[in-house]
Amino acid sequence: MRNIRITVQYEGTRYKGWQRQVSTEQTIQGKLESILSRQFGRKIEIDGSGRTDGGVHARGQVANFRLKEEETELFHQNMEELTALLNGYLPEDIAVLGAELASDRFHSRLNAVSKTYKYRIWNSPVPNVFDRKYVWQVKEPLDVQAMERAAGYLLGEHDFAAFCGNPRMKKSTVRKIYEIRIEKKGPEIDLIYTGNGFLQNMVRIISGTLVETGLKERCPEEIEEILESKDRKKAGAKAPAQGLILWEVKYD
Amino acid sequence: MRNIRITVQYEGTRYKGWQRQVSTEQTIQGKLESILSRQFGRKIEIDGSGRTDGGVHARGQVANFRLKEEETELFHQNMEELTALLNGYLPEDIAVLGAELASDRFHSRLNAVSKTYKYRIWNSPVPNVFDRKYVWQVKEPLDVQAMERAAGYLLGEHDFAAFCGNPRMKKSTVRKIYEIRIEKKGPEIDLIYTGNGFLQNMVRIISGTLVETGLKERCPEEIEEILESKDRKKAGAKAPAQGLILWEVKYD
Repeated sequence: MRNIRITVQYEGTRYKGWQRQVSTEQTIQGKLESILSRQFGRKIEIDGSGRTDGGVHARGQVANFRLKEEETELFHQNMEELTALLNGYLPEDIAVLGAELASDRFHSRLNAVSKTYKYRIWNSPVPNVFDRKYVWQVKEPLDVQAMERAAGYLLGEHDFAAFCGNPRMKKSTVRKIYEIRIEKKGPEIDLIYTGNGFLQNMVRIISGTLVETGLKERCPEEIEEILESKDRKKAGAKAPAQGLILWEVKYD
Repeated sequence: MRNIRITVQYEGTRYKGWQRQVSTEQTIQGKLESILSRQFGRKIEIDGSGRTDGGVHARGQVANFRLKEEETELFHQNMEELTALLNGYLPEDIAVLGAELASDRFHSRLNAVSKTYKYRIWNSPVPNVFDRKYVWQVKEPLDVQAMERAAGYLLGEHDFAAFCGNPRMKKSTVRKIYEIRIEKKGPEIDLIYTGNGFLQNMVRIISGTLVETGLKERCPEEIEEILESKDRKKAGAKAPAQGLILWEVKYD
């Protein structure tokens, strides 16, 4: 079997997220699997580096799937041809940026060593027309310094249970955030998170909490208490899906 | 009467262009006029710096309209309040970036001294997901140097009849192009045109002709003959509307 790794870009607006669901094909994984299965005439499953929620976008989602040696003849073992083949069938809001042969042991989720998410905020009373599907529009001015101070408390290894959207989470809620960078470019404020992994809704709940801090509804020091409480109700509201982009997944 | 100048941004995808039409409200001018007329309880007409075709976008369209002194009470003569009022009623693909009081003689079309249009090309076999509604996707590699040489022949004052989409154009087809800048940023190639005015479809026909040159279907020197011929059939195909953005309109 050949293990093939692909990098996928998508606008999540029309989809119920990455993960295949029984009832609907409106997921990114479902779209990719149905195209692959149709092309190769058998059921092909694909593993992603992680789920993204409905409405969340990806600039560089990574996934992998296995083909039989003889099946790679369909694209003459040429990865650019495979990329073009898939893009020819994908809708215009999903694209395969590239494909490559991976080692047999490669697994897009298990081997990921870090992930970067970007949360884009459009902080202006004047609406953003062109990027409106990729930003959260917040009209009231945000105090970026307060947000940066709050973000500082989240760095490093913590139990992020208070920032986890899954109340029945059985596995460990400990994660490590390597960096939170806040970039201000004109009216746009980007929150860029890099960590070893993120819990369900974690980036959106943190972003919502940081925005509440920027609006002075909270003070930065509260973050410590929220972390310690491990109580979802203490953290802020989940920021809207549309501002979030899975930016990059890194492997060793 | 007070003469009010506004700067308008829009994604043209859903619209039949700037100019109001009798049969439909699906124009930018029509949307703005119906909101203003509803707010002020009388028919208000608005002048734009020029038409844009159906599907063409604007980053900085300029328009003006007149209000009676007492009508400005509705927004307390506060231009930010007027901007917020209009944005509150506009659909999310149209936004007013700002409003200001203009001199009584100001006319957005007649007083414009230069206009800048940007034509965005995504030149890659890999599709562009996020900006797909704002670019023309051309898969085959373009020879930017050939396009730059061709563009050189278009600079200055010429009779652009061969690049005019209106076969019944009665008025002068002489225009002056001050600059054509070609910017390459990764797979994106932007054609940025500044001139004293542009004929109907002129930027799209020039862009289509430059792309044919970049694809080596034409040689740059042909531009001279095309200009001299004054024959629309000699020029290239009109580039798709979606790549075009009215970037900026300048006044004295």
